[in-house]
Amino acid sequence: MIVLGIDPGYGLIGYGVLGKTGNKIEVIDYGAISTPKDMPMSKRLEIIYDSMLMLIDKYKPVEVAIEKLYWGRNITTAIPVAQARGVIILALQQRGVKIFEYTPLQVKSALTGTGRAEKAQVQYMVKALLNLEKIPRPDDAADALAMAICHTQTNHKLISY
Amino acid sequence: MIVLGIDPGYGLIGYGVLGKTGNKIEVIDYGAISTPKDMPMSKRLEIIYDSMLMLIDKYKPVEVAIEKLYWGRNITTAIPVAQARGVIILALQQRGVKIFEYTPLQVKSALTGTGRAEKAQVQYMVKALLNLEKIPRPDDAADALAMAICHTQTNHKLISY
Repeated sequence: MIVLGIDPGYGLIGYGVLGKTGNKIEVIDYGAISTPKDMPMSKRLEIIYDSMLMLIDKYKPVEVAIEKLYWGRNITTAIPVAQARGVIILALQQRGVKIFEYTPLQVKSALTGTGRAEKAQVQYMVKALLNLEKIPRPDDAADALAMAICHTQTNHKLISY
Repeated sequence: MIVLGIDPGYGLIGYGVLGKTGNKIEVIDYGAISTPKDMPMSKRLEIIYDSMLMLIDKYKPVEVAIEKLYWGRNITTAIPVAQARGVIILALQQRGVKIFEYTPLQVKSALTGTGRAEKAQVQYMVKALLNLEKIPRPDDAADALAMAICHTQTNHKLISY
């Protein structure tokens, strides 16, 4: 089964694609969708939406794990990030991908055993669990892979979006 | 020229459609798109997007005025409202509608001459300026008409989205 992880944003949207066979997971692809700073937000949202559809159509994920937005984050970016997350969710819904959401705390706990882990520890675990030679870049892609790994290791009966 | 006003939300999205000829404005339609409370948010976003496309295709607006989101509003709803606003903006962008945004303060000032006006005063002015027999319901539709009226009365060279 293909699992997609998404780190939502509007300038840089990280994604990670995992294959899951039984208890085994392997990385298939990762990267980031980017939109230019000087472009009107409406056009940036259209690029994000079109890119998400292309990503879904390329890898045909069955399930997706996406970061749950919360109030602790930077308040000047929370509104544009939520707008972008709206069009990402729309693309996933239109293609019938099952959507699950996780907090950063849940991701840290699933990967390192503690919600107080540093970012570097989480990234190290992404590299180790996926047998990668180095930590994936950009950070947004590593975060998206961490989100997807979290989903494969979580009993998610109760957290369907 | 057809001008659309939008009061963004996820449970109820108000809209107002105005025709503008020179300095004259007339109401063409108004109402609200609604989504069921017990439905997953991803499905609600899809309904909002599909309904927006239908609305745009029916009235073919050239310009749209939509409320600018800000931090003073209810923080528990700001994130889902912003997600919904994202899919609304996407639909407008895909159909080539020119997007403008206004704060509640700008709308109040444009309709009543003061940013400190009560909601009832703004609604009264919507009724008066559009020669309606009564105040439009629901409130979200009246707010959307106020947004569209504000746009027709504003020099909006500098505020394109």
